Amino acid sequence: MGKLAFIAESTVRSIVTRELAFDAVRDAFESVAMNRSEVFDVVIGSGLRDNEIFGVKSGTDIKNRMVGLKVGTYWGGNAEKGLPAHGSTILLLDPDTGVPQVLVSASYLNGYRTAAADAVAVSFLARSDAAVLGVIGAGHQAEHEIRAVAEVRNLSLIKVFTRSETRASWLADRLADIAIEIQFTGAEAAVRGSDIVVTATPSKQPLVRDEWVSEGTHISAMGADTQGKHELDTAIMKRASLFAEYPQQSIRIGEFQHAYGEGLIDSAASVCALGLVTLGHSPGRTSDAELTVFDSSGIAIQDLAMAAAVYEAATQKGLVQFIEL
Amino acid sequence: MGKLAFIAESTVRSIVTRELAFDAVRDAFESVAMNRSEVFDVVIGSGLRDNEIFGVKSGTDIKNRMVGLKVGTYWGGNAEKGLPAHGSTILLLDPDTGVPQVLVSASYLNGYRTAAADAVAVSFLARSDAAVLGVIGAGHQAEHEIRAVAEVRNLSLIKVFTRSETRASWLADRLADIAIEIQFTGAEAAVRGSDIVVTATPSKQPLVRDEWVSEGTHISAMGADTQGKHELDTAIMKRASLFAEYPQQSIRIGEFQHAYGEGLIDSAASVCALGLVTLGHSPGRTSDAELTVFDSSGIAIQDLAMAAAVYEAATQKGLVQFIEL
Repeated sequence: MGKLAFIAESTVRSIVTRELAFDAVRDAFESVAMNRSEVFDVVIGSGLRDNEIFGVKSGTDIKNRMVGLKVGTYWGGNAEKGLPAHGSTILLLDPDTGVPQVLVSASYLNGYRTAAADAVAVSFLARSDAAVLGVIGAGHQAEHEIRAVAEVRNLSLIKVFTRSETRASWLADRLADIAIEIQFTGAEAAVRGSDIVVTATPSKQPLVRDEWVSEGTHISAMGADTQGKHELDTAIMKRASLFAEYPQQSIRIGEFQHAYGEGLIDSAASVCALGLVTLGHSPGRTSDAELTVFDSSGIAIQDLAMAAAVYEAATQKGLVQFIEL
Repeated sequence: MGKLAFIAESTVRSIVTRELAFDAVRDAFESVAMNRSEVFDVVIGSGLRDNEIFGVKSGTDIKNRMVGLKVGTYWGGNAEKGLPAHGSTILLLDPDTGVPQVLVSASYLNGYRTAAADAVAVSFLARSDAAVLGVIGAGHQAEHEIRAVAEVRNLSLIKVFTRSETRASWLADRLADIAIEIQFTGAEAAVRGSDIVVTATPSKQPLVRDEWVSEGTHISAMGADTQGKHELDTAIMKRASLFAEYPQQSIRIGEFQHAYGEGLIDSAASVCALGLVTLGHSPGRTSDAELTVFDSSGIAIQDLAMAAAVYEAATQKGLVQFIEL
């Protein structure tokens, strides 16, 4: 029957780096942009109670020879039990036989994976001298976004907007090791004058107003991944160049769903696949005055790439457990 | 992070019985019939090559407190490698936290699970004196169906139709331990005079003609589980009482899709959920002359129930492996 390789969360923690995540996610985006990947329908299921949902995202990456799926869970009541609400598990199938090959306990990994998409976008789309980062949101993911962006640009100031003082002090503590000034501000102040703006909230109402955003800014909209989620004024999209990891999905369930619904985006063809930029097939930013928006809604191909990269690194370090199927 | 319980295939083989499968599947059908379960959309994905597909079936059983999914694979090229083409893996999530709880290597289990649906149907719908079984198909599943039906009725004769002599001799060898006469016949002879008819093929053309089926027969149509699959003349449904594990699915992707498409079945309400019969809420067969048809297309709730039953039995025998997540 063969053996299943298992990567525990403690192993993931000892292996994963921003660089590993960046390279894996960039590879995934390039496969998607070259149409060498297939993303299947996302299933959304529910648990026994309200406020308990799981999603299954699956895909096949022909270029990188990967087949598999991620099960993502959100159990709202976990916080009361001192457990994280979100969880992720990735299963890779052997592309030659379909037999389960690698199982990765990916809850910790998931923050790296999502933030790596942002890092790839900022790396290729933000001005090279971008130094001021504005962040909308102060949850776990905001921490990941800040760390990932700080790897690809020399930041001098980080401005964070959150409505919650508890979250602000939590995030300040978490980022105590970062040698960059962090200010907690209003939403407008977080956006105005920032070279890079990252939104990482579950909002269903736009939080970033068009008039706050100056020319030359790069925005990464990381929050919207289902119908109804919304972080940016749609007017922003009228004057911006638009990018997404998977344009067909961005106009359905990503931030671009709203501009698409209002007719401000004609079709997926109006959005550039980020992988085309990293491959050099598309120019990306063409002037310092250009406003660029990257919409990330997340695709299974990223998850497969992350799992494969972690598996490879764990194999090199002899940290893989094998289970007889 | 907790621990994941893992049940290897060798453990499944040492634990699973027809009785365990029967009870688990009956429980699942009753939960479905009482609307205490939810079945989510099935995803069909593909591998790197043609002839490589995987499906994800997920569900939640509120009555029995189970949440999870099955990944089923079909890799057509495996036969050349001496590997089974079909594979199954079931993942149960902890219903209280969403954290992965039990992983079952379920390829072997799957044959028991599917045949158990047939056994429940035959047990509650076939005449109590049914003694002659006709089987259309002679694959792995046909063996399971025969063994499962033989547990719930005193059979005196089994007639099997297959177009392949190789399959016929394979099946005869497999069933050498069964003390019941087995004849390999034409399709018509397999059906005529049989008290129970089981179809277990991937056919897309009806194989069982209406005029061959006499009054009082019970038919279990086990093959059709996607659009296009078809085993029975739709005329049969005009004079039969109709049953399915999940009527809403049977008229979409099960055998009943064709009679429904032709207007011979009005709606899912014309099909009785088998669980209502096992619960005693619906009469099932009401006379020896009644023709009954059970359409099985398979639902995730069965898989969850099988995994939970195997996990419980493995726990009692101390055969569960635990992996630190």
